[in-house]
Amino acid sequence: MERVDFNQYSSEALEQLRRGAFLTVKAGDKVNTMTIGWGSIGFIWGKPIFMVAVRYSRYTYELIDKAKEFTVSIPLKKDLKKELAYCGTKSGRDVNKFEECNLSLVDGQKLSTPIIGECEFHYECKVVYQQAMEPATVDEGIKDGYYPNNNYHVLYFGEIVDTYIWD
Amino acid sequence: MERVDFNQYSSEALEQLRRGAFLTVKAGDKVNTMTIGWGSIGFIWGKPIFMVAVRYSRYTYELIDKAKEFTVSIPLKKDLKKELAYCGTKSGRDVNKFEECNLSLVDGQKLSTPIIGECEFHYECKVVYQQAMEPATVDEGIKDGYYPNNNYHVLYFGEIVDTYIWD
Repeated sequence: MERVDFNQYSSEALEQLRRGAFLTVKAGDKVNTMTIGWGSIGFIWGKPIFMVAVRYSRYTYELIDKAKEFTVSIPLKKDLKKELAYCGTKSGRDVNKFEECNLSLVDGQKLSTPIIGECEFHYECKVVYQQAMEPATVDEGIKDGYYPNNNYHVLYFGEIVDTYIWD
Repeated sequence: MERVDFNQYSSEALEQLRRGAFLTVKAGDKVNTMTIGWGSIGFIWGKPIFMVAVRYSRYTYELIDKAKEFTVSIPLKKDLKKELAYCGTKSGRDVNKFEECNLSLVDGQKLSTPIIGECEFHYECKVVYQQAMEPATVDEGIKDGYYPNNNYHVLYFGEIVDTYIWD
């Protein structure tokens, strides 16, 4: 495990994020992961921040809203396309994604939320701010494209408390 | 002018952003710039997004809320510490920052908002979503540290429509 500055690999991380990464959450004894293709890395409120967006309808929403923390696991070398496709289309309410995809849960370094052991790059984040999207100020094109049924995202701003390479 | 992918220099841009960058806005014939140290770069709603935060009290707030677009100019080589300090403490309501700091306004490539010619790296952004911060879900430490008087930020999510090096 090699710890790095939160911003050292931002370009590489965002590049892969667009193609797919794992957002993992744990509340009590319930753990789930989902595929995300959106997110941002930045510096806000004097803190390094990873922002993720989760729709109300998601099982992940139920968990993250209780847990107030999450991890983001990014495959930088291994090809996890099949696993990402599966975890982006199935719901953790119906299946155990970790068993189905042979994904291993590894304890987080700073959080009780685990990371996905098959990925090489990880952020551990504690939610310091969250906000449900406000329909009134969303661009019309985005509204038509992504929210025809008002299934909006909640934006979770997580303070990045650890960033590391896991080989 | 060398056009680059929005994400090519994210690490370098975020690194300098923490130290100071210029957020420039133009509404009608009024132009202003302010120093920002916070922001994020990401991919959301299928688009490259630069997020900036502007407090209600700012002159920039009046302008960006009308203009719905902004540019971010980042000094990568030139030392603009003095100019950043000035533009972060004075208000464009009281002074003409461009004259006082000898900062030159250069026409934007895609937007009517100009960029700061003394900086080497630029993002041009069209606001596709904005949201005033919701006090109820802000972490207590952040609330005490940054919002004792309820002068909250409005978060502006700008689609990055151009990214380039300007030498």
